[in-house]
Amino acid sequence: MKSHFLYSSATCGFKRTGKPDLALIYSPVPCVYAGVFTTNQVRAACVDENRILLKKKQKIRAIVVNSGNANACTGKRGINAVRKTREITARILKIKSSEVLVASTGVIGVHLDMEKMEKGIVAAVPKLNVRNLKNAAKAILTTDRYLKTIKKQTKDFSIVGFTKGAGMIHPNMATMLCYFMTDINASQLMLQSALKSAVENSFNLISVDGDMSTNDMVILLSNCHGKKKITKKNDPLFSNFKKILNEQCLKLAKEIVADGEGANKVITVYVNGAKSQKDANEIARSIASSNLFKCAIFGSDPNWGRAAARIGATSVLVNQNRIEISINKTLVFKNGTPVEFNKNKLNKEIKQSKEVKLTVNLKLGKALGLAFGCDLSFDYVKLNSAYFS
Amino acid sequence: MKSHFLYSSATCGFKRTGKPDLALIYSPVPCVYAGVFTTNQVRAACVDENRILLKKKQKIRAIVVNSGNANACTGKRGINAVRKTREITARILKIKSSEVLVASTGVIGVHLDMEKMEKGIVAAVPKLNVRNLKNAAKAILTTDRYLKTIKKQTKDFSIVGFTKGAGMIHPNMATMLCYFMTDINASQLMLQSALKSAVENSFNLISVDGDMSTNDMVILLSNCHGKKKITKKNDPLFSNFKKILNEQCLKLAKEIVADGEGANKVITVYVNGAKSQKDANEIARSIASSNLFKCAIFGSDPNWGRAAARIGATSVLVNQNRIEISINKTLVFKNGTPVEFNKNKLNKEIKQSKEVKLTVNLKLGKALGLAFGCDLSFDYVKLNSAYFS
Repeated sequence: MKSHFLYSSATCGFKRTGKPDLALIYSPVPCVYAGVFTTNQVRAACVDENRILLKKKQKIRAIVVNSGNANACTGKRGINAVRKTREITARILKIKSSEVLVASTGVIGVHLDMEKMEKGIVAAVPKLNVRNLKNAAKAILTTDRYLKTIKKQTKDFSIVGFTKGAGMIHPNMATMLCYFMTDINASQLMLQSALKSAVENSFNLISVDGDMSTNDMVILLSNCHGKKKITKKNDPLFSNFKKILNEQCLKLAKEIVADGEGANKVITVYVNGAKSQKDANEIARSIASSNLFKCAIFGSDPNWGRAAARIGATSVLVNQNRIEISINKTLVFKNGTPVEFNKNKLNKEIKQSKEVKLTVNLKLGKALGLAFGCDLSFDYVKLNSAYFS
Repeated sequence: MKSHFLYSSATCGFKRTGKPDLALIYSPVPCVYAGVFTTNQVRAACVDENRILLKKKQKIRAIVVNSGNANACTGKRGINAVRKTREITARILKIKSSEVLVASTGVIGVHLDMEKMEKGIVAAVPKLNVRNLKNAAKAILTTDRYLKTIKKQTKDFSIVGFTKGAGMIHPNMATMLCYFMTDINASQLMLQSALKSAVENSFNLISVDGDMSTNDMVILLSNCHGKKKITKKNDPLFSNFKKILNEQCLKLAKEIVADGEGANKVITVYVNGAKSQKDANEIARSIASSNLFKCAIFGSDPNWGRAAARIGATSVLVNQNRIEISINKTLVFKNGTPVEFNKNKLNKEIKQSKEVKLTVNLKLGKALGLAFGCDLSFDYVKLNSAYFS
């Protein structure tokens, strides 16, 4: 990256495990800021506060993210906690508090301990370093099993990013916590529209458990150090940026699903022959979030009937006598009737792979859609029942 | 019951367990028939065929129900199987084939073996008996752990009924398989409206796993042997019938949830202070079908934050700063802020009980709603992953 974003992490003690639970992102220069947020009406205070800064098109220099406590459903005290976090960070970094974004993930309905927060920020600032991205990415994880970062360098711009996922993943409009840092030299409006579209075609297609979070957000910061200033939407450089941003969002979204709570297999659902992309995506996501189909895949059972039932349960008008379903490359349902296939062979195929592809053709139009889910395993139940709020 | 409905069961071999899998209900006299069916667009042939008979207001004398095979997603051959089942039954019972209803439950996408079906019907007919209701109720079960029957006798009328549930339970409009036999002397229109309303306030409030079935149906037959012919909707006798039908539907609906696949605890969600009953029911059901909240209850964890997140994720407009949440009798969230409570005490309380009550007050209006769900346990995953389609 042509210029420096600096990263750091600290341990405040929000997590019971004693693992790092505070990440800090810092830019020496003010950045253009784009963001998309959860549409959940029950929202964390940080979501609302960051939205206000977005509306004002504020330039941003720092993001503070804590894990282990979502600071959601915490009322006015929750809002004050966000403001206080911004003030502490601004004071220590010698920037304006309106240049600081805050994000939280973890248990809902517990007040943030601001002493712990201050201690964490104080500890994090001196460690700010360009090489600490992985430490920051690690500090925002909750039940995630592994790091999810991306890094892309072209001759014109660079993007780095990291995200967390694991549970309460069924985003709408935005999702989870995800941060992109870039140097592309484009306006806030252009970056905002690029981010929105990339999120729509990536994070908004995934589901781990059908539960929409209170704290989802995807943030993109650009210090605009790119040599060429982009002024037109159809500039080939910007088109390339959008393409790459899309790809990187999709890559991280798929990683979130692969690392979904208790997940062993990614379920990719392709829907084609729909009247609109919206219809196709709705059906794809309905299948990808079916508990029954997810359990079948956990058992490597090619139980396509459970997927068929979900197709009919959406708001999309379908004709069951036209539907075609394939699992991986095996056709299992055609024109409303089952197709004979070797169940034992397909069972073995699913068992041996980390990904299952289900393809649905509605034969009603030309639009395509897709969604990503994961299997539902004993470990999902274990993680979410053993977890004491 | 003043007059006889006769019941029987048989073993066709649809179930791999070798348990009874065919139920037969028979009335010596033609009965008024009311029914509500799944709104899933991917439907079993029997649903469509029964609907045609309902539209024609046909009188019914027999219902054949098989378990172990849903005869859904089976195309024209599936429709022919239903018609053939009706013909066989009509021939043996010496009634008209238009007097026979058919229902199926079990695996989707497998053709019915009509030789087995005929063998089963032939075996069932000679055993028709007024005392065989429990055998019939047993034969329609799949992963259910126990029988679900009701019996109610007033001086004016009687109702008996039975149902099955367990998995793929998230009904819309109608649900699962459920049969009521009565002698109330009322018109088809009156009975249809009574049934529809009872179903709306019972079966349509429950969810085991969020998966809407292809085969749901609730059927009510009346031989109209009741002494008094009811002609007016506001006849107190009919009002009493509707009240009792409602109660019995609710009782069976709750039993389905209690016996949901892998279920240990019933989750009852009350929503009040909504602008409409529809809004209240939508929120209640959204909470009752949250995988995360269901897992928390499996672990006896009073994790109300997961319920709060679901309130905001519905299409109902809410104000998070007004919401109040209680678990059993403990207030945990008020005016958008958490209320201090003894978590260990509530954890113990949940652990020791078979039912958890979550009450939400939206403080937006006066409408009430409710929903019933169950916890999500290891056994749900086990049942639905080990099950080989």
